[in-house]
Amino acid sequence: MTEQRFVTIRGKRFHWIWLRDHCLCPQCRHSSSFQKVYDLSEAPSTPEPLSIKEVGDELQIIWAGDPPHYSTYPISWLLSLAYDNETSDDDKSETKKYLWNLAELEQYAPIWSDAITDISENWFHQLRELGFSLVQNLPSQELEAFILSIGPIYHKFRYGPFSKSQAIPNAQDLSQSAEGYALLPHTDSSFLYDSQRMVEYFYCVENQARGGESILVDGFKIAKDLQEENPEVYQILSETPVEFRHLHRNWEYYFRRKTPIIKLDINNDDIFGIYFSHKNFNHPLVSFEKMESFYDAYSTLLRYLKSPKYQYCFKLMPGDLLVFQNFRILHGRNAFVANSGHRELTVAYQSWDYFSGRHNFRNLKNLYSAESMFLKKD
Amino acid sequence: MTEQRFVTIRGKRFHWIWLRDHCLCPQCRHSSSFQKVYDLSEAPSTPEPLSIKEVGDELQIIWAGDPPHYSTYPISWLLSLAYDNETSDDDKSETKKYLWNLAELEQYAPIWSDAITDISENWFHQLRELGFSLVQNLPSQELEAFILSIGPIYHKFRYGPFSKSQAIPNAQDLSQSAEGYALLPHTDSSFLYDSQRMVEYFYCVENQARGGESILVDGFKIAKDLQEENPEVYQILSETPVEFRHLHRNWEYYFRRKTPIIKLDINNDDIFGIYFSHKNFNHPLVSFEKMESFYDAYSTLLRYLKSPKYQYCFKLMPGDLLVFQNFRILHGRNAFVANSGHRELTVAYQSWDYFSGRHNFRNLKNLYSAESMFLKKD
Repeated sequence: MTEQRFVTIRGKRFHWIWLRDHCLCPQCRHSSSFQKVYDLSEAPSTPEPLSIKEVGDELQIIWAGDPPHYSTYPISWLLSLAYDNETSDDDKSETKKYLWNLAELEQYAPIWSDAITDISENWFHQLRELGFSLVQNLPSQELEAFILSIGPIYHKFRYGPFSKSQAIPNAQDLSQSAEGYALLPHTDSSFLYDSQRMVEYFYCVENQARGGESILVDGFKIAKDLQEENPEVYQILSETPVEFRHLHRNWEYYFRRKTPIIKLDINNDDIFGIYFSHKNFNHPLVSFEKMESFYDAYSTLLRYLKSPKYQYCFKLMPGDLLVFQNFRILHGRNAFVANSGHRELTVAYQSWDYFSGRHNFRNLKNLYSAESMFLKKD
Repeated sequence: MTEQRFVTIRGKRFHWIWLRDHCLCPQCRHSSSFQKVYDLSEAPSTPEPLSIKEVGDELQIIWAGDPPHYSTYPISWLLSLAYDNETSDDDKSETKKYLWNLAELEQYAPIWSDAITDISENWFHQLRELGFSLVQNLPSQELEAFILSIGPIYHKFRYGPFSKSQAIPNAQDLSQSAEGYALLPHTDSSFLYDSQRMVEYFYCVENQARGGESILVDGFKIAKDLQEENPEVYQILSETPVEFRHLHRNWEYYFRRKTPIIKLDINNDDIFGIYFSHKNFNHPLVSFEKMESFYDAYSTLLRYLKSPKYQYCFKLMPGDLLVFQNFRILHGRNAFVANSGHRELTVAYQSWDYFSGRHNFRNLKNLYSAESMFLKKD
């Protein structure tokens, strides 16, 4: 008979090797950072318990060795990490996404948070649900502090923390074209590998131009609809790598990135991100035989993105701050009339890591007795 | 008979739809940014040529429409993008990687570039081949300019552009532990989604402590060796998502990221990156039945990483700058004796995007007559 190298706690099985690796004692975890120090590859063989006891809310194990090693685990913490008959994934703290087309968004009725009177952080909650949020009445001198309260600002190219979106002559990007071109809904930085999970901030400094309304589209919603209505298009867009490029003559960069437009997560069961920018699209990496079907799929996506059914349109006014997940929400604009008035947005980027990291931290006390006990210890 | 919607140029077939989408004229591409403006989804049907002619080194097409549209393509440029009987992938400019264990590294004999006398950018070339490079005699006041000459510095947490690696009390990371712990070879930021392709800089300010030698290991080499010597371990490590975590009490973050340790590229035929940090490792996302094999694979990886066969060890001295790809090279250190002398490194991060973007730019004139003609036009 095969030896059973696990113990069953309240109906959930935990392997000895897993338990030994998860020991929480100050010898196995560095005391002030709580990081793992114990190195399981140094053990001569699979760890073996001399005794296993449930004492109150704790599991106590004495491991064979010279000297023996003592481990204590809060049982509620163990159960939160159980992997028996389920893949361990304690992301219960994740906010449920609300996917939207225009009608569904109107039903949800997004609120514009007031930067001065609203300290409830509704905007943070809405950002997680809708993929974007709107704040108004933010004085320009408070913009940087507002963003830094979440985390550091991502510096892009040579802009420093902030860049400007405004019409300029000899623009190196269509978004700054003096002609006031319309922009199809797109994600920014499609040509950079290190910007896959960024939040983007648009702060309106001035908007006197005729036209130039902002457009937002929920890329996750369109992907889900494509999956139902055009499964073969969804398959092509999620399986075909394409290349996005950006040439910056003045700063001497030629950026190129390969990615599927609809990028699935590790287990291929959820969408990780949408990456799409027609102005930066170069070519798909497919064989001759598949080229025409790819272009069919690409055109279908463009038609969805341009459909009023999905587009939320509004005009940003001075003091307005639009915040959106650049890996879910595609943004665009209507054309504006060149020289009809000044239009200037301040743009900043920030990793979604800092939003989710802060959110996880706040939820910590509800989730992990071990880490939260550690947090409370001083 | 099915209509043939392509044309054959010097033995390579190009679809009409592909050619129409790749039109280079100022109506289809924005003049100063060279970005695509033409929207193929607006066409009523598949574009149809009225005439196709080779004239000298150019292909000239007149497209049906009212009015007709004229496209001209340099043939050498078309051929560089050919996708007939091959997947279009003109990355011929990519430097071939030299994977190394210690013996192979000694054979390669990496050079230490001198920051003052060596202006050849050998360090840049070596970084692409070996995954790391070494520069010496860099005055500390020139560090920032050196890094900014490539691109912007990534701001992490609240450090600003630079953080310090030194022993401090109550450290929030093992690397700063007052005890001078050894560090197993690891990649930094394993718990962040937006730092998958970063270059890391270690600038040595002072190194008086006994011990604390730097260790570098080529993760791509180990992955290749695992694939040959332990294919089942390679398979587990490249297919199993694991979760890395980092708790920052003072700044109120709890970062969590899911990724395979060996991450393959889109086509699963090459390694995209290695992500591994034992101190931040939390758990694999596998079923009960696969848990023990995962831990076996994990231990095997640790044994490879710790083997002297793979480790390049050296001691950084003041003025030395170590630059490495944090997605290929794992770095670690020997323990150092606490209070035996001051040890201080200045640490900075930068996206690999800026290295490859600059490299692509320099190669542009050899590769794409269309873009390079565009570059030369003013």
